Amino acid sequence: MSDSTRPLEIPIGIDQIRDAADRLRGLAHRTPVLSCSALDQRVGASVFLKCENFQRIGAFKFRGAMNALLQLTEDERHKGVVTHSSGNHAQALALAAKLAGVPACVVMPHTAPSIKRQATKGHGARVVSCEPTVESREATVAQLMEEHGYTLVHPYDDWSVIAGAGTAALELIEDAGPLDVVIAPVGGGGLMAGTCLATAGTSPRTRLVGAEPARADDAKRSLEQGAIQPSHNPRTVADGLRTSLGRRPFAVLSRHLERIVTAEESEILQAMRFIWERVNIIIEPSCAVPVAALLAGRVPEIQGTRAGVILTGGNVDLDPMFQSLSERWLEKGR
Amino acid sequence: MSDSTRPLEIPIGIDQIRDAADRLRGLAHRTPVLSCSALDQRVGASVFLKCENFQRIGAFKFRGAMNALLQLTEDERHKGVVTHSSGNHAQALALAAKLAGVPACVVMPHTAPSIKRQATKGHGARVVSCEPTVESREATVAQLMEEHGYTLVHPYDDWSVIAGAGTAALELIEDAGPLDVVIAPVGGGGLMAGTCLATAGTSPRTRLVGAEPARADDAKRSLEQGAIQPSHNPRTVADGLRTSLGRRPFAVLSRHLERIVTAEESEILQAMRFIWERVNIIIEPSCAVPVAALLAGRVPEIQGTRAGVILTGGNVDLDPMFQSLSERWLEKGR
Repeated sequence: MSDSTRPLEIPIGIDQIRDAADRLRGLAHRTPVLSCSALDQRVGASVFLKCENFQRIGAFKFRGAMNALLQLTEDERHKGVVTHSSGNHAQALALAAKLAGVPACVVMPHTAPSIKRQATKGHGARVVSCEPTVESREATVAQLMEEHGYTLVHPYDDWSVIAGAGTAALELIEDAGPLDVVIAPVGGGGLMAGTCLATAGTSPRTRLVGAEPARADDAKRSLEQGAIQPSHNPRTVADGLRTSLGRRPFAVLSRHLERIVTAEESEILQAMRFIWERVNIIIEPSCAVPVAALLAGRVPEIQGTRAGVILTGGNVDLDPMFQSLSERWLEKGR
Repeated sequence: MSDSTRPLEIPIGIDQIRDAADRLRGLAHRTPVLSCSALDQRVGASVFLKCENFQRIGAFKFRGAMNALLQLTEDERHKGVVTHSSGNHAQALALAAKLAGVPACVVMPHTAPSIKRQATKGHGARVVSCEPTVESREATVAQLMEEHGYTLVHPYDDWSVIAGAGTAALELIEDAGPLDVVIAPVGGGGLMAGTCLATAGTSPRTRLVGAEPARADDAKRSLEQGAIQPSHNPRTVADGLRTSLGRRPFAVLSRHLERIVTAEESEILQAMRFIWERVNIIIEPSCAVPVAALLAGRVPEIQGTRAGVILTGGNVDLDPMFQSLSERWLEKGR
């Protein structure tokens, strides 16, 4: 049996998520749960939106990174941590490390937007460039670990990170009350895994559904085939969901997730716009994927139920939007 | 003494605002209060953002309209209500009237965006067009009142509307705890008047500051000169703040408001972008004016204090932004 198909043990559950919630108290924001009558009408359900776009660094990733940092040994704290990410996990780890007083190093492809590089450096992390390939990322991280004794804080394939991510669903259930369905996006699977464990541990009858871009449906295929199906640089606007499913998340999703639904690119952008316009919050494309699936009617069992959706993040580069808008408005206002 | 300089009696106070809060319970959303460390750092204060962009119809206006509707006599309810507005009050009155089961008619200039007309009709209100002048608006409303016996629900120069608007500040103070300063935008002055009465009635030591676009500083000039100075079609991106100060708001602001600070057009757009990017919420330009004044250092006494800001609304036409964005992203994702 190959490495990727052997089912991993799942060493964490609701207790570890509750511990993480205790650790994160006062450090992570308890984000609000919003609802929107226009959304409820469109999907025929009471939908509760857990707004992790209001989390620190604008995404749920802070929860997992902080939870991992707070469990390091004194020696590990002293030597520091490393990760690879060009996205929200980079900033999450950098901020968590700053708060924990731990040195952090983030490996980023040299193609990453300079705004993300700056934000990560802004929290005091060291940024090391690599080639934009999985091999180069992993080799660079391995070398840094070897050289400096850094501890890896993986973006999603890490039990502490998964437990931290699960605290969002825990809060959602506490604040929204009983939920019939919980739906969240699946990229590397860390959030969905934490959501599964938190939900199964507090509300075992709640159905769990994942959502992926149709163009990056590796987790769906992995669950259907019972083995991790790698994702090969999929082209989707949902840039946070391009990664392949991790082994630990795969183990959790295999046990707890009912199924994964998908959304097309245009549906993702329409859903993002729907949320921007109707809820007046900014969410990123990856975050819009579950909403897109709901709006497209791909979770029909939601009808008449109380459904929770984890809105994962809101980090969007607004530059191109604002340039045209400012010109237009200042022109009009003159 | 002319009509516009004679100080009006102020027949409402904290009791009427508490009554309004009771009336609105379960009808208006209790909107969240958010904070943002990036904003706090920039302005050197703990800033509490009362997010009325999450209110029904996306703006605080629902509070005042609903409060007014709920105080109609049976005869008034039967005959219906009328107002003039091309903005958030139109939709607010339309929705409130639908919920209260009262016929509503909204007079809009024929130049109003069709999206606003549609939204107002969508809530079941009758929309009557007029010329885009104050005279035409008022004449059309007067004629409709004469013909149909409608009751006028003025967008801001109405004590019930002011009391309803004041419930936002009441909730802000309840949720944020003691505040040293409260700042809100001033257009017709209804929100600022309600904010003044709610704040003075619950937290008399809190300083009250208004904010206006420098290009539409009629309220500032009115307070300085002790008489209402009309605004003549000012050209500002803050379209909700183009109206002249109402007589009732003028009376309240004269008594309670410490002063009015202003913001330039580019500052307003920068502040709007700051909130979009850092808080991940969508606010409209009018709503960004107090934030612009804070970011520009025009309220220096805020340093080291706890400050509340009423974020008034989030209704922005996203069409031009999304057209360019969708094309760009779908291209990238392909």
